Amino acid sequence: MTDAGPGVGPVETQRVVLFTEDDPLVLETGARLAPVEVAYETYGTLDGDGANAVFVCHALTGDAHAAGHHGDPRRPGWWDNLIGPGRALDTDRLFVICANVLGGCQGTTGPSSIDPATGAPYGLRFPQLGVRDLVDVHRALVRRLGIERLLGVIGGSLGGMQALQWAIDHPGELDGAIVIAASARLSAQNIAFSAVAREAIMRDPDFNGGDFYGDGAARPNRGLALARMIGHITYLSEASMREKFGRRIQDADEPRRGFDVDFEVESYLHHQGRSFVDRFDANTYLYLTRVMDYFDPFGGDPVELAERLSRVDSRFLVVSFDSDWRFSTEHSREIVQTLSAARVPVTFREISAPMGHDSFLMPIPEYHRTIAGFVDRLLHERGA
Amino acid sequence: MTDAGPGVGPVETQRVVLFTEDDPLVLETGARLAPVEVAYETYGTLDGDGANAVFVCHALTGDAHAAGHHGDPRRPGWWDNLIGPGRALDTDRLFVICANVLGGCQGTTGPSSIDPATGAPYGLRFPQLGVRDLVDVHRALVRRLGIERLLGVIGGSLGGMQALQWAIDHPGELDGAIVIAASARLSAQNIAFSAVAREAIMRDPDFNGGDFYGDGAARPNRGLALARMIGHITYLSEASMREKFGRRIQDADEPRRGFDVDFEVESYLHHQGRSFVDRFDANTYLYLTRVMDYFDPFGGDPVELAERLSRVDSRFLVVSFDSDWRFSTEHSREIVQTLSAARVPVTFREISAPMGHDSFLMPIPEYHRTIAGFVDRLLHERGA
Repeated sequence: MTDAGPGVGPVETQRVVLFTEDDPLVLETGARLAPVEVAYETYGTLDGDGANAVFVCHALTGDAHAAGHHGDPRRPGWWDNLIGPGRALDTDRLFVICANVLGGCQGTTGPSSIDPATGAPYGLRFPQLGVRDLVDVHRALVRRLGIERLLGVIGGSLGGMQALQWAIDHPGELDGAIVIAASARLSAQNIAFSAVAREAIMRDPDFNGGDFYGDGAARPNRGLALARMIGHITYLSEASMREKFGRRIQDADEPRRGFDVDFEVESYLHHQGRSFVDRFDANTYLYLTRVMDYFDPFGGDPVELAERLSRVDSRFLVVSFDSDWRFSTEHSREIVQTLSAARVPVTFREISAPMGHDSFLMPIPEYHRTIAGFVDRLLHERGA
Repeated sequence: MTDAGPGVGPVETQRVVLFTEDDPLVLETGARLAPVEVAYETYGTLDGDGANAVFVCHALTGDAHAAGHHGDPRRPGWWDNLIGPGRALDTDRLFVICANVLGGCQGTTGPSSIDPATGAPYGLRFPQLGVRDLVDVHRALVRRLGIERLLGVIGGSLGGMQALQWAIDHPGELDGAIVIAASARLSAQNIAFSAVAREAIMRDPDFNGGDFYGDGAARPNRGLALARMIGHITYLSEASMREKFGRRIQDADEPRRGFDVDFEVESYLHHQGRSFVDRFDANTYLYLTRVMDYFDPFGGDPVELAERLSRVDSRFLVVSFDSDWRFSTEHSREIVQTLSAARVPVTFREISAPMGHDSFLMPIPEYHRTIAGFVDRLLHERGA
């Protein structure tokens, strides 16, 4: 089913203002935010009764452009292998929506947006966010599109956190939640990696307290590139790095020694760092990693949690990958155990795949079959 | 046996010039280096025939001060739990030597030393090094101390690499080699972590091409602290981080949100970074991590390797820790398999300990017993 069809073809990113001064977004902290503009894309056709809509939540550095292409078919969206005619999220049957998250930098309001109070970009004056706030903006978009109840919400990593939070907070809004390579509670090691990445950004002399948007101003690109390099090490497994690079020396038979890039893995990380700074905002990196650090949907008062989980009316699919050491299977198992203990219906699959955390982006047949089967079941149950 | 005795008490670091203009150190690359001064310490008393001498090789950020104290018994050397009267390296019986490595910054010639050709610190004009060069300086010290054949060489991590290289290159010089939490060949992931650490240092605007030693000059402390923070994540296991920090918020009941240090693990990493820059040279960090990247004692022509290994006359003890993910047991197993295939006598122990790579510094009874038993055997065989 992977790459079965010709793909969804050319698409355009759309923008919509969902919250205004008169009707601001009220955040988890109580702060108010307006305007909130959202960039999103859709693939497929919405059924008359809106029963075939699937919302895709992206991960830390993703964007609204999940499938199809913007003119060059060789540069498809980030989840194009999953979404399209005949693919696991089959756009011949489904209406798929993907939106850039709140706090993002790819068209949705975030720290690089203009603060109407000052006429200048927010920078670190942008309010702190929680996963609930990201979800609330998605929900507003769904209402705006006229969809009453989604067939499902799906996401990997930070995207999976959004799917999880949505399903447990808002009974009645989605039939199914697909939570992939995610965590309900970052470990100390997870937090440590993101803390070092943030330090790299904030210690960059060009960070300037988050105000680096002026024309011609230097941006904290050194720090942001380092953050990306650190991230990339944690996205791949040791085995996939060995497979991909080994100890090969780039463009040479003999090591050059010295401190220039010599091993292929160094060259790869450099490239990842360099290309990232052209498309990503350092402040968004700070805000969204912090959103992940504090995410703890099963924390707090256990009685209140039990009460909340007892109202959940979504079916869950939780997927992990055996080589993922950023959010290992243990993280998924914790989600499954908590939901199961509350009698929420959960299907759990650990997929064997060597690519580490990045596996969730890969066209792994068993993985895509698992998603397609779950969606089939949701469609069947909705039809019934 | 751990902490059994009162410790070796007050010690002083000694310094000796081992190579001079007339008799320079010839490096693996063919470059010549002089003068080479070495800082070292000794514990215990050398036997008349020099048969009780054990050389301790330190890891990336270690120094010559392995045991005893410099005036304050509460601040002992970095391997004081292993070395002392009645301890695993029993100074009632053994004469223990530890020297700062070539390229170091704690008294032995390195990139922060004065280049006699210019009268200024070497910086990046210091020559590139290999593990063989570090070993050659240790060997010169051993000769200077009048020791003909060591009872053993022991080291963890980069120290273990030195012990391994020494034993396979120099038959006749040591009875036993104890190679702990080491690797004969860094993985792509290992190289990736050290590449990012070096990038953090070299992208620091105060790095200044390695010339940052002038009076009042800013040093690349931001980059060096980041390198240390990244390193520390890899020295601990995920389990030990969970145990040590969990998701605890420091000095508060409620998360503060924002980008300041909030979780205890962040505070720990900050402290590690801050205190490191006061005692360590950023250029040494570059040189010694690169020494590790290129280390490959079993590489090259297999026939030549087999020939070389056939002459080895040392007995090996190889030790790994099951929670070490920086140099996992697989790395040790590769060493053991290569040596065993060449009929070199090897004892292998994987120790169960939760502290990750740092376990080699910890007073773990089974670990210390294993070392003590191996040393007993060496003493017994030497006596026989």
